[in-house]
Amino acid sequence: MTVHAGIVGFRGYSGMELHKILSRHPRVETWLMEHREEEGSVEHRTTATPEAARQAAIQVVFLATPAEVSMELAADFVSSGIKVIDLSGAFRLRDVETFSKWYGEPHTQPALLADAVYGLPEFYRDRIPGAALLANPGCYPTAANLALRPLVHAGVIDLNCGVVCDAKSGASGAGRKPSLKTHFCEVTENFSAYSVFSHRHVPEVLQNSGLEEKDFSFTAQLIPTFRGILETIYFRALNLASADDLLGIYEAAYSGEAFVRLYKRSQLPDLAAVSHTNYCDIGFKYDAGTGRAVVVVAIDNLGKGAAGQAVQNMNLMFGFPEAEGLQ
Amino acid sequence: MTVHAGIVGFRGYSGMELHKILSRHPRVETWLMEHREEEGSVEHRTTATPEAARQAAIQVVFLATPAEVSMELAADFVSSGIKVIDLSGAFRLRDVETFSKWYGEPHTQPALLADAVYGLPEFYRDRIPGAALLANPGCYPTAANLALRPLVHAGVIDLNCGVVCDAKSGASGAGRKPSLKTHFCEVTENFSAYSVFSHRHVPEVLQNSGLEEKDFSFTAQLIPTFRGILETIYFRALNLASADDLLGIYEAAYSGEAFVRLYKRSQLPDLAAVSHTNYCDIGFKYDAGTGRAVVVVAIDNLGKGAAGQAVQNMNLMFGFPEAEGLQ
Amino acid sequence: MTVHAGIVGFRGYSGMELHKILSRHPRVETWLMEHREEEGSVEHRTTATPEAARQAAIQVVFLATPAEVSMELAADFVSSGIKVIDLSGAFRLRDVETFSKWYGEPHTQPALLADAVYGLPEFYRDRIPGAALLANPGCYPTAANLALRPLVHAGVIDLNCGVVCDAKSGASGAGRKPSLKTHFCEVTENFSAYSVFSHRHVPEVLQNSGLEEKDFSFTAQLIPTFRGILETIYFRALNLASADDLLGIYEAAYSGEAFVRLYKRSQLPDLAAVSHTNYCDIGFKYDAGTGRAVVVVAIDNLGKGAAGQAVQNMNLMFGFPEAEGLQ
Amino acid sequence: MTVHAGIVGFRGYSGMELHKILSRHPRVETWLMEHREEEGSVEHRTTATPEAARQAAIQVVFLATPAEVSMELAADFVSSGIKVIDLSGAFRLRDVETFSKWYGEPHTQPALLADAVYGLPEFYRDRIPGAALLANPGCYPTAANLALRPLVHAGVIDLNCGVVCDAKSGASGAGRKPSLKTHFCEVTENFSAYSVFSHRHVPEVLQNSGLEEKDFSFTAQLIPTFRGILETIYFRALNLASADDLLGIYEAAYSGEAFVRLYKRSQLPDLAAVSHTNYCDIGFKYDAGTGRAVVVVAIDNLGKGAAGQAVQNMNLMFGFPEAEGLQ
Repeated sequence: MTVHAGIVGFRGYSGMELHKILSRHPRVETWLMEHREEEGSVEHRTTATPEAARQAAIQVVFLATPAEVSMELAADFVSSGIKVIDLSGAFRLRDVETFSKWYGEPHTQPALLADAVYGLPEFYRDRIPGAALLANPGCYPTAANLALRPLVHAGVIDLNCGVVCDAKSGASGAGRKPSLKTHFCEVTENFSAYSVFSHRHVPEVLQNSGLEEKDFSFTAQLIPTFRGILETIYFRALNLASADDLLGIYEAAYSGEAFVRLYKRSQLPDLAAVSHTNYCDIGFKYDAGTGRAVVVVAIDNLGKGAAGQAVQNMNLMFGFPEAEGLQ
Repeated sequence: MTVHAGIVGFRGYSGMELHKILSRHPRVETWLMEHREEEGSVEHRTTATPEAARQAAIQVVFLATPAEVSMELAADFVSSGIKVIDLSGAFRLRDVETFSKWYGEPHTQPALLADAVYGLPEFYRDRIPGAALLANPGCYPTAANLALRPLVHAGVIDLNCGVVCDAKSGASGAGRKPSLKTHFCEVTENFSAYSVFSHRHVPEVLQNSGLEEKDFSFTAQLIPTFRGILETIYFRALNLASADDLLGIYEAAYSGEAFVRLYKRSQLPDLAAVSHTNYCDIGFKYDAGTGRAVVVVAIDNLGKGAAGQAVQNMNLMFGFPEAEGLQ
Repeated sequence: MTVHAGIVGFRGYSGMELHKILSRHPRVETWLMEHREEEGSVEHRTTATPEAARQAAIQVVFLATPAEVSMELAADFVSSGIKVIDLSGAFRLRDVETFSKWYGEPHTQPALLADAVYGLPEFYRDRIPGAALLANPGCYPTAANLALRPLVHAGVIDLNCGVVCDAKSGASGAGRKPSLKTHFCEVTENFSAYSVFSHRHVPEVLQNSGLEEKDFSFTAQLIPTFRGILETIYFRALNLASADDLLGIYEAAYSGEAFVRLYKRSQLPDLAAVSHTNYCDIGFKYDAGTGRAVVVVAIDNLGKGAAGQAVQNMNLMFGFPEAEGLQ
Repeated sequence: MTVHAGIVGFRGYSGMELHKILSRHPRVETWLMEHREEEGSVEHRTTATPEAARQAAIQVVFLATPAEVSMELAADFVSSGIKVIDLSGAFRLRDVETFSKWYGEPHTQPALLADAVYGLPEFYRDRIPGAALLANPGCYPTAANLALRPLVHAGVIDLNCGVVCDAKSGASGAGRKPSLKTHFCEVTENFSAYSVFSHRHVPEVLQNSGLEEKDFSFTAQLIPTFRGILETIYFRALNLASADDLLGIYEAAYSGEAFVRLYKRSQLPDLAAVSHTNYCDIGFKYDAGTGRAVVVVAIDNLGKGAAGQAVQNMNLMFGFPEAEGLQ
């Protein structure tokens, strides 16, 4: 069986990565769909419509578009019976109030939002096959949630002191649209923090990790690399005898998961280990004397943080082996 | 008046930077002193001796050498009446027990250690002019101490939860000696953590900031840049009405300081702003609702973190204007 | 049918790339073979021997080792009836005199050299299936020969003026062994020429392109990237009406080739287009008024310049589809 | 004596570098002049006018603006008796036909063009003090002309075969205005050629080196660095016994020059050696057997290639020591 898939926004970094992964996928044929508002697009060749999709027998459309574009297009496709995997933030937050607070605009499709499934397979695998609209998780939240949720559920974080998540991302996370912020000369030999306390990805972490806003300090920072996200997470631990306890918690959460790799014996992940892959690597250190713990989690922001995870979700939606096309 | 200065270890990055700064300094004549054990050195041209120094009328020697070499050479020069500014960690910790715990070897010059002055001018300016042996601070501790000490003294940090210092450094911080860790292909497009809980610079932060080990989580991380240190510091705040209170604390501590720049209105420093300078830039954010605060501090690890600060100290030792040769 | 393959030198960049490609290859099982002289190796676990290879039923061994190691190991394996694909320069030059002139040491296996097949499939495809010892081409020569040989054979180069090949390579071309030359801080924000007129790869270009030494100026240069080779080639043209003639020559040479891509209408290749692939991309410009021509050729030095081409050769040796495992 | 200098275009990389150099210059006070058409500018604060300049007693204005803006502004300032140093290409070519051919627009100030002085001090030092309008040379031509002109004049280049100039530049050469071409992700881990045969800097090389268009192949290429230009120049040599003859020609041309450094004994310059300086470094190799020669020339495109040279010219125009503020 072959799935016919379309990509809207194929000129951006997530869309280009999707195209690359799907081109190698043995069960997918891919269409590139021109969207009229996209940079580099030729208006009269607009094909990001349900009509064009039906003509090409497209069964699933990947939206690698900004949230405001995704809101409109998702409605069009879903109402035409075409499945949608949206890589934007449009359908990730369950609550419209939260959405408008952090995205600075009202949500135009609240009904759709209610039906959307948050596509983090390691947590919500059961809901994904039946999804008509899948909200593919953000890059920072994918890493943070995979690292934090098992610990929150196990009750080993001293919430009185909260959690610090010091996050770093390569420049592709800022998108392909040129700006001074991503000019080569502004990024190379530099390192800078942005969106302290105000990053749109914060509520997505809270919603899925079990933490509350008052417990969570998040700083996003730009590193001079093309790809990659690494988050260094700090907390005071409760009820923890040794680092082995942390390993036990993670092993219980992720045994059998194809794309989560746990580091043992104090080794820590780095960006190179996950670059061009769909893996999420997790390592940690615990100092029993002081009760302080550090978790390091790394993903490729275009892999497990975007296109890779989107294909993992597509595999689940169409009954393919979950890792097909992703090794 | 002109000072005659010698540099031992002039082939390393700190030594090269020292040479560059001193070459432009209007009141210094510089000698490069060959040390027999240094890579690239020609044995029979060894000139890192008190005899050779006296012949060249050298009044101050900068040691840009490993701690074990500095311990020996400092003793030689000081006992010959030549002032020493040591850029290694050999004489920074007051306590020999602490030294041997973190450096993994006994201290061979405990008497000298007792006389050494820790050369962070913003804290200990008065002691520097009279120093026979000056211990130039480490790069990570310079940034951390300048950011933390005023806050610790002001009592605005909730010590129950402690302080997180997520530190990042360019590759020159690892020295010029080739190793796989600093191979271009291992660093570019990568980001990695190292020495979690065990970095030698931790006790230097504790000694000068007023924090205790149990209160302080420190992670050193390697970024793909040549230069620069940026530290993102997190804590729960006490007794703080607004970010203006933080600004007030810093202004009280650093008014009149030539090399500490405070960022206002939520702007944050980055590496580019301090690269090739002797500045320490400090910015911060405070969320009154949750009581969480973030401080971002940046220096050039070869500037304020090593050679620049060493020259600032030399200026103080010889009665020159503190910023001479450093703008 | 599955081939059992061994890799000696799997800790270097070519060996690591080989391991990655072969892990995805559907018809190969891979063994990592410890060589006693290799850095990071554990002596008593030496398995780079014909005995160990036979025990593991290994049919082909990839040598990603220095030329002097390859000379010895190739002899051992070939005499035991195991096929060898050597990625070093040990068996690429037909003439032992030429070898010793450029490699600065005598060739210890002249008989083997006579039997070795030079594995550039686009030129010598017929000889590869029967090879017992295959000399995998060098990275610079692969690009230069694919760009130059069709032009030399077509007689469109004014040999009186000769050919300039200005070559640039990423740092992985210098190997993984740490050295000051490949220290991150020496490579980043830098660009440098090396081995002008004296690079070992020159005779390999001459042997296969049809050029003579007096006609060929070659400069190797280090760019601050992990991967990639780009060569800019200049010559005065003869008998050329327009750029279309150049296209015609290349199309005649490479029609049907899976891994050579020709750029049309004045577009030129760059490193990003070939990174992590086995492609060789060729573009060109011709100015009919002055008779000057420029050819730009790009490959991934670890792909078509090393491991990718080695696997392409293995496919041909074992009767697999030539592109298997390489898209 | 202090000069009052204005900078128009101070938000671009050349303008920022000018500002940095002039801030350290002991004889200059600097004004930043807002130009209404500049990005980031606030219209009502426009101060790039002769009136504002006169009020501030400005004696010289540096124009770090695009050629079309420089044409207009230069006319305004010069007619008001204020000296102009223009960093654009507006006034570098003596011939208006040549200008319109390569810049694709007519020259609007042909009379001014006739009076402009081309500010390459090593060739035209005598004309600079009296200049009302100084055309600061382009970055690529500065390097190419300093390397080529002594050789052309000495008659050691076989013009029948011509000269190849393979030029590489860091990304700041493309300006600070954001574009996809200079997006970090498009530049890092990449290397690409552009403007083959058609770069605007070609006629500037021809005009000052003595070469003719048919003799000169020039390719501009983008390297993943912030700064720096390195050009690798190839020719067949005439009348040359050894590399010493090349050295002799260069020494005769540049003895006494503060900013041209000659490399001896086959050493070659690299970008790091000239970064953040006003030096032009020249090295070369000659193979007497084949008659082939290679010259490598390196400058900082923002230093000797733009702002540094502009200050060198200002020093000459105002009778200051030529190297003042430039070491």
